[in-house]
Amino acid sequence: MKSAVANPPNSPTMQTAITVTRSACREDFVLRTIFVNHQYVAEADAKISVFDRGFLFADAVYEITSVMEGKLVDFDGHLARLKLSLGELDMGLPLNREQLLDVHRQLVERNRIKEGLVYMQITRGAAERDFAFPPPDTPQTIVAFTQKKDLIDNPAAEKGIKIVTLADLRWGRCDIKTVQLLCASLGKMEAKNHGADDAWLVAEGYVTEGTSNNAYIVKSDGVIVTRNLSHRILSGITRNAVLKCAEHLKMKVEQRPFTVDEAKGALEAFCTSATTFVLPIVEIDGEKVGSGMPGPVARKLREIYISESLGSAI
Amino acid sequence: MKSAVANPPNSPTMQTAITVTRSACREDFVLRTIFVNHQYVAEADAKISVFDRGFLFADAVYEITSVMEGKLVDFDGHLARLKLSLGELDMGLPLNREQLLDVHRQLVERNRIKEGLVYMQITRGAAERDFAFPPPDTPQTIVAFTQKKDLIDNPAAEKGIKIVTLADLRWGRCDIKTVQLLCASLGKMEAKNHGADDAWLVAEGYVTEGTSNNAYIVKSDGVIVTRNLSHRILSGITRNAVLKCAEHLKMKVEQRPFTVDEAKGALEAFCTSATTFVLPIVEIDGEKVGSGMPGPVARKLREIYISESLGSAI
Repeated sequence: MKSAVANPPNSPTMQTAITVTRSACREDFVLRTIFVNHQYVAEADAKISVFDRGFLFADAVYEITSVMEGKLVDFDGHLARLKLSLGELDMGLPLNREQLLDVHRQLVERNRIKEGLVYMQITRGAAERDFAFPPPDTPQTIVAFTQKKDLIDNPAAEKGIKIVTLADLRWGRCDIKTVQLLCASLGKMEAKNHGADDAWLVAEGYVTEGTSNNAYIVKSDGVIVTRNLSHRILSGITRNAVLKCAEHLKMKVEQRPFTVDEAKGALEAFCTSATTFVLPIVEIDGEKVGSGMPGPVARKLREIYISESLGSAI
Repeated sequence: MKSAVANPPNSPTMQTAITVTRSACREDFVLRTIFVNHQYVAEADAKISVFDRGFLFADAVYEITSVMEGKLVDFDGHLARLKLSLGELDMGLPLNREQLLDVHRQLVERNRIKEGLVYMQITRGAAERDFAFPPPDTPQTIVAFTQKKDLIDNPAAEKGIKIVTLADLRWGRCDIKTVQLLCASLGKMEAKNHGADDAWLVAEGYVTEGTSNNAYIVKSDGVIVTRNLSHRILSGITRNAVLKCAEHLKMKVEQRPFTVDEAKGALEAFCTSATTFVLPIVEIDGEKVGSGMPGPVARKLREIYISESLGSAI
């Protein structure tokens, strides 16, 4: 089923791509190099088998590591969670830490990423379509690519974002970072259709998390509330780091479910994710949160998180 | 993002594949022809972009049509459901009925399928990774392939299968036939680990359906019970046909949720799907159903369903 990637790194196609890149006038017009099954290939050659279980069964997990000043933020945090996700699905890690770090760094360098992200996806590999897993020696598929993005200078951090609340229809193991992301994608689109930027998902009366971020409120007594970890939400790497920042700042945190009404009556609301860091939420379902402006807690946490991350990035 | 498939039907690679096929001694050793984005390609060339949303977001739907005597069973039923799935996800149908029928027939012919199935998957296409949908003019990805399988002569139909019951952790829109199949795959593996063949999924005390089939019991009064249609279960094309067979046979059917205990105390249990037709279930969670042997209702429905399908296949 698996076949060697048609164009190894130094194949004519790859060289053509590089030539195109170098002859391009606009600096940001760079044909990306993409990592596919242990080879660095040009974007047009970045392909996987139609029999890949990531494509046929969403039998795949992923991680997104942000890049600031050309360095990887919390690489080891993401690696630890990747191992947890793979473990829950009885999958192994096809490369060790040093190899994965090398892939990340090579992609950052080859694609000249100063700020942005590295996306990495690992699947159970390509095999004849069958709900049952293929033999354990089936080579796993590993894909990684970069995206350039302004992460620090994000206008949304200044203005705050508007969200709507939607029923959480996702499966029961949202703690595993799988590519079963259709519900999140549909949620993002429904938010847009309502003139909002994103959505918080609600199950049994309580907010679980955002479509691709963890959710927080700041109560009138200044206490930060965010949902406790369970199968219902992703254990955010940024969540973990931001909670540590809050602790250093002597902010009080309660980890428990909260309702939409509680959020609407809060002083502040915000969300966290690897590529948005801390984003203030100024409107929920058309109702202003607090003053309707980004609040001091979200602002402070964003500032400290960015500063800590710049210091510890590798 | 999208690029032309590297090997059109008559490319050297394809011809090599055909040569290999023809020189092979075993009749069943046939390198399949696969349909990928409007081209018929050899299996080794059947690839999609790593940016395909089917791969990154499980943003894709599929159908499986069984083939008997070289003909397609209930092609129009599957097409109708495909349209429903696509519609629920705001996706269009990239080919019309005649074109899709032609793809199915070409694959059946080129791959010499007398009995087996045609699998078809349609995604929102390849685009820069973003939870938000890409522009509506993004070309959708369409992939189709065949599998040879003995459908009529299935030993499981004679012996019956053993199932276990598991918590239904799937998302809230199981009526849409998406590739978010990880839960079903894990369920199938958990069943195997328990020495069973498959699993029935249970939500809030009631059986929803099997991992890849609809679920039925026959009560002591001879009434067939199967769960009513809702967002919780797939509206099986075979379910629909089998319920029509039951009607013709003057069997009484109740469409309502039933519990695991009700199933364990039933005279018979069975499941239906496009490629297994009607399969008797003889054991649930280690307890015999009825006599522990396939019962007359499942047997009769299987027989009639196969006969009807052979008659109406196109």
